Amino acid sequence: MKRVDRKSESENSIVKIGNSLIGNGELTVVAGPCAVESEMQLYQTACHIKKLGVQILRGGAFKPRTSPYSFKGLGLEGLKILQSVGKETGLSVITEVMNVRDVERVVRYADALQIGSRNMHNFSLLTEVGKSKKPVVLKRGLCATIEEWLCAAEYILLEGNSNVILCERGIRTFETYTRNTMDISAIPAVKNLSHLPIIVDPSHAGGRRELVAPLAKAALAAGADGIMVEVHPNPEEALSDGAQSLDFMEFSRLMEQMSAANVMLKHIG
Amino acid sequence: MKRVDRKSESENSIVKIGNSLIGNGELTVVAGPCAVESEMQLYQTACHIKKLGVQILRGGAFKPRTSPYSFKGLGLEGLKILQSVGKETGLSVITEVMNVRDVERVVRYADALQIGSRNMHNFSLLTEVGKSKKPVVLKRGLCATIEEWLCAAEYILLEGNSNVILCERGIRTFETYTRNTMDISAIPAVKNLSHLPIIVDPSHAGGRRELVAPLAKAALAAGADGIMVEVHPNPEEALSDGAQSLDFMEFSRLMEQMSAANVMLKHIG
Amino acid sequence: MKRVDRKSESENSIVKIGNSLIGNGELTVVAGPCAVESEMQLYQTACHIKKLGVQILRGGAFKPRTSPYSFKGLGLEGLKILQSVGKETGLSVITEVMNVRDVERVVRYADALQIGSRNMHNFSLLTEVGKSKKPVVLKRGLCATIEEWLCAAEYILLEGNSNVILCERGIRTFETYTRNTMDISAIPAVKNLSHLPIIVDPSHAGGRRELVAPLAKAALAAGADGIMVEVHPNPEEALSDGAQSLDFMEFSRLMEQMSAANVMLKHIG
Amino acid sequence: MKRVDRKSESENSIVKIGNSLIGNGELTVVAGPCAVESEMQLYQTACHIKKLGVQILRGGAFKPRTSPYSFKGLGLEGLKILQSVGKETGLSVITEVMNVRDVERVVRYADALQIGSRNMHNFSLLTEVGKSKKPVVLKRGLCATIEEWLCAAEYILLEGNSNVILCERGIRTFETYTRNTMDISAIPAVKNLSHLPIIVDPSHAGGRRELVAPLAKAALAAGADGIMVEVHPNPEEALSDGAQSLDFMEFSRLMEQMSAANVMLKHIG
Repeated sequence: MKRVDRKSESENSIVKIGNSLIGNGELTVVAGPCAVESEMQLYQTACHIKKLGVQILRGGAFKPRTSPYSFKGLGLEGLKILQSVGKETGLSVITEVMNVRDVERVVRYADALQIGSRNMHNFSLLTEVGKSKKPVVLKRGLCATIEEWLCAAEYILLEGNSNVILCERGIRTFETYTRNTMDISAIPAVKNLSHLPIIVDPSHAGGRRELVAPLAKAALAAGADGIMVEVHPNPEEALSDGAQSLDFMEFSRLMEQMSAANVMLKHIG
Repeated sequence: MKRVDRKSESENSIVKIGNSLIGNGELTVVAGPCAVESEMQLYQTACHIKKLGVQILRGGAFKPRTSPYSFKGLGLEGLKILQSVGKETGLSVITEVMNVRDVERVVRYADALQIGSRNMHNFSLLTEVGKSKKPVVLKRGLCATIEEWLCAAEYILLEGNSNVILCERGIRTFETYTRNTMDISAIPAVKNLSHLPIIVDPSHAGGRRELVAPLAKAALAAGADGIMVEVHPNPEEALSDGAQSLDFMEFSRLMEQMSAANVMLKHIG
Repeated sequence: MKRVDRKSESENSIVKIGNSLIGNGELTVVAGPCAVESEMQLYQTACHIKKLGVQILRGGAFKPRTSPYSFKGLGLEGLKILQSVGKETGLSVITEVMNVRDVERVVRYADALQIGSRNMHNFSLLTEVGKSKKPVVLKRGLCATIEEWLCAAEYILLEGNSNVILCERGIRTFETYTRNTMDISAIPAVKNLSHLPIIVDPSHAGGRRELVAPLAKAALAAGADGIMVEVHPNPEEALSDGAQSLDFMEFSRLMEQMSAANVMLKHIG
Repeated sequence: MKRVDRKSESENSIVKIGNSLIGNGELTVVAGPCAVESEMQLYQTACHIKKLGVQILRGGAFKPRTSPYSFKGLGLEGLKILQSVGKETGLSVITEVMNVRDVERVVRYADALQIGSRNMHNFSLLTEVGKSKKPVVLKRGLCATIEEWLCAAEYILLEGNSNVILCERGIRTFETYTRNTMDISAIPAVKNLSHLPIIVDPSHAGGRRELVAPLAKAALAAGADGIMVEVHPNPEEALSDGAQSLDFMEFSRLMEQMSAANVMLKHIG
């Protein structure tokens, strides 16, 4: 590894998505539904999170699903809704890209791209998003070591795109209470090994609504640059990942806690 | 799951690669180098394995590598060498495809396609090889459950390609003596759950030359339909995976053992 | 490590339990119920397995149970039944010891001691059974590396007891179809690293009746010195581990397969 | 499970060690060397931590070691030093017990007992410490699920000792950068499932000095009742676990951070 190495760059990298800076010492919050389901659902969510100070909206148009019979997202229609809601609300939008052939298209509709954990080792896709200059949120593979994750980021940087944000989303272990095991030590480990910013996804990591707040606070305390959280107007009716999505009231409460925690942690350093 | 289910098809599926039938009760051996390095290297290997009765030659032209700085294969040149050596020796050839954009091309050069473990969750690629009608060897993901692996196969069958062979190649655990942990129970489990044939790759599973023979014999005894083994004229000089490749003498010895074991296990049933 | 090392002893060690030799190139079969439940249950089982040529009877009197509310075995009464049935049938008996305070007592009733996987790191217990000279079957810890397992054996040898038989019983992984993942590569690995004999427990490893035969055959093919199998007159009514216990007919069928496989594998070498 | 269940007791349990209350909403810090090496080493450490407000001193007299050739602690002499230093400095002392035969003795010398992760499934030992009424710190097994861990605690409560404190110390995964993977989600999970207090051991979890502070802060943010940290006058010369031990200056800095974080988190709730 060269480009991702802390040795190659002693200053922390700052990645810009729209007007937000990730990695500048402030806590960034990315929020939104797992999947874009309708204009109404996304618009309501966008308005709510914006009101709370969030600047980046997430929403999946192409959903990687273990079973081919699960809801796979609205595709191009989802991208259009995302872009339109982003413009109306002034939020930047981020969405996953799964196919090298979709990169060009997704780049036109979104402000940042996401590589999901199942594609962390999809080297063709890494190379393709490296050729675009859009910011990329690179999720850690289900079973990837930190070193392999950084190697995956290197594929992107090698093509000239250094706007990479790492995202810890839990690794697979034998524990069954949680969906995955959030590797909290990955945060300080990445900070030691690399100059890239790192955020966490407590929704996927824990897989349970009630774990989102404690995991988010822990990530912040461990030095994460941000969190990405699933929010849905009505989690019970979500087409995917309802069990781990927060409703609006829960998200409001989380934001209060995050903001208080953020202020405090700055005192400590 | 529907199409891959044992319930949907009580007869074992038989997949044809060239003139070889996989899943018909005979043990199939696929052999060859990890990567195609040169015409000479591949031709020597092909002649040796053919002499021992092997009918399918493997060799990577596109190599998935954790680090972008490792040898990534000869690409198109590798495909051409593979096809040419296949024709000269009368062997069928199988090679990995990593990029949806390469599928069409690889289909022209090879008799069967391989999806590597890092791409088991690359749903775009699964769909693309499903649209071709070429036989597909689908390796289990590094960290995939058996159920997820079968779901990945379902993506291929769903497009109309039922020529799928599953390949167990070891899962990731905390054990460090071996490269991966070969999940021997996956063989009878797959036989219970699905009608698809299953082979194993003892070279990648163990990551050590001396483990290939015992793991191959174990797989046969557990009911595998075949094995895929790495063979190289000079493993010490291999550009990838030398530590787990057999040289020609070691491979000859393995084939004797396999053939004896095969005869015997048929008596037992 | 010193005493367990292959380097310290190039000849394979042979351990004697009653009149049986483990590690001499023949396949040893240990069979019996998970737990001793009654004299009748054990006697019937003993008669059946003896008729099929088995010489060592297993049966738990002290059962390690995750929950304190599960059946924990008959204790001293179980030991007495075990000894009495052993004498009547001429079988050697092996049983688990969990408490350092029980070692002296268990030594009086049994021909061999078993250390369960949950106690592999119970160093006081290892030392205590090392002081006795009884043969010890040392199960691999749920999550132990091969090196740690050999270190645990070293604790026993260090006290002067070199009658140690290693037993692979599956390790914990993320896979949920099987109870544990039988690490088949542990067999050749142990053979490379140590002179001690190694057997496997396909019943606990797979946790499913239908997996016992394929796993047992695989273990034999990979070079195991023996297998330990759970047999119960009526698995549906077993007080523990019924799902993985064979009934008498299933066990008879297994023995036929083992014996045929054994003959055959000797030809191959 | 009954006694450990949140359902059986809606109030959080508070466990008293000496004059300290664990689980009352304040952050408890336990600190000291991995192993008691000498009176001087322990006394210096005790004075330093006391000065910073710590009230409980840890120090191992009996050390569980993977290899029998590693330093196994000073044994009885270590217990005596621990007791004597505790009296001189007014600190409560906690130490590990590994052998059922040592429980009575350790109970005389220490204010609280520790069950190490290797003994979490040592049911005899759990029962024995359950019979004493001393507070018990029960570490999670290397590979134990949260449910199994709570079952282990149930063994202790069942004997009448409800003074149990759970301690998360990292689980075993495939990641190699850290010694273990600290399961941060275990903290809120335990709080949901049980009324028992939970602390973490960031020293063993990460296995690296530089990870102690971020992991400790994360644990606090996730709701832990305390932390247990390894401190040594001269980590480079420690007889065990030097790489993860803090020196006095590093520990002072940690305490400042903890105390600030503690104040802050109370505001947030």
